[in-house]
Amino acid sequence: MKIINDSLTISTEGFNDMKDLTPLVAEKLISHRLQDGLLTIFVPGSTAGVTTIEYEPGLVEDFSRFMEKVAPSNVPYNHDRRWGDGNGFSHVRASLLGPSLSVPFSGGRLSLGMWQQIVLVDFDNGPRDRAVILHFLGE
Amino acid sequence: MKIINDSLTISTEGFNDMKDLTPLVAEKLISHRLQDGLLTIFVPGSTAGVTTIEYEPGLVEDFSRFMEKVAPSNVPYNHDRRWGDGNGFSHVRASLLGPSLSVPFSGGRLSLGMWQQIVLVDFDNGPRDRAVILHFLGE
Amino acid sequence: MKIINDSLTISTEGFNDMKDLTPLVAEKLISHRLQDGLLTIFVPGSTAGVTTIEYEPGLVEDFSRFMEKVAPSNVPYNHDRRWGDGNGFSHVRASLLGPSLSVPFSGGRLSLGMWQQIVLVDFDNGPRDRAVILHFLGE
Repeated sequence: MKIINDSLTISTEGFNDMKDLTPLVAEKLISHRLQDGLLTIFVPGSTAGVTTIEYEPGLVEDFSRFMEKVAPSNVPYNHDRRWGDGNGFSHVRASLLGPSLSVPFSGGRLSLGMWQQIVLVDFDNGPRDRAVILHFLGE
Repeated sequence: MKIINDSLTISTEGFNDMKDLTPLVAEKLISHRLQDGLLTIFVPGSTAGVTTIEYEPGLVEDFSRFMEKVAPSNVPYNHDRRWGDGNGFSHVRASLLGPSLSVPFSGGRLSLGMWQQIVLVDFDNGPRDRAVILHFLGE
Repeated sequence: MKIINDSLTISTEGFNDMKDLTPLVAEKLISHRLQDGLLTIFVPGSTAGVTTIEYEPGLVEDFSRFMEKVAPSNVPYNHDRRWGDGNGFSHVRASLLGPSLSVPFSGGRLSLGMWQQIVLVDFDNGPRDRAVILHFLGE
């Protein structure tokens, strides 16, 4: 069994910006010539998260609105009072969604549904270049 | 170390239908004769999720009500306007909960708490037969 | 490749009590002399969860308030009506956040961001001694 630690760099705009990682991840899987195993996607940092979604513009907007409603940006956060970052809402959303996602692969293909994409969501309050770790365990 | 890719098929009713997978998963673990390792439960598809809960009828209802409150089915979704699926709420809930869960096992047993069950939650707006992947890494 | 099943015991106060596990986890990683692999943090039990956050007092409070708002403790739960535990809210929050988190490590170090800590959140309605499983797959 092999352990392969790879990564992507993704430029984001923040404010719930959602990026489809699926084609890049699938390419990496092929390049490492692994057939069966487990892929863990992990985003270092405390203002972004990963999940899956049917990546189409309507849902991208729906999910962004949902996050704005559930953890609003226009209410006071203690984080902002202490540190003046103005991104308390970003942190709360990121902790809620979580930084890691594990996807099995088999026969050289990710076990995703047909309408299911792996996405990075950047909740921060400005543009960032995000490192995303792709950790493969398999053979 | 072995990699074993197995699966379950679960019939669900949608609308937050929650199914206890624990006995089926425990049976699979025994049948593969693994002692120590990591199990990843992954649901392909973008309208269902997995988590753990104390699986009793009161909480099953509480969790369903919570999801209805936090991501209501009776508000407009852009997904529905574009595609007419009527299940925008299902997608948002599924992306929030997430499609994967990892549970260590040791001495041939899942490391769950006594009142903690592994559950599939189907958020879609109708009945489905769901594939659930059980990915074992262990020995 | 090695499979190492370790654990921590963490005393908590409940009511969203959040504990930073990062220094303890980093110590365990060093003690097992692993360089590359995947760590899964799993909390047995149905009233606690794990995630990452920038662990500073402002955000700890923000996250607690967020959880109180999204799944309030002062509304009726069917779980409480049936079992009289009074912790229906704890269960709902725990199922939402999830009991597992996977963090890759490389060169003997966890792949966390600089301001990103691994935390246990105990949602129960009283003090507990919590077991937290640290499951290492690596070499």
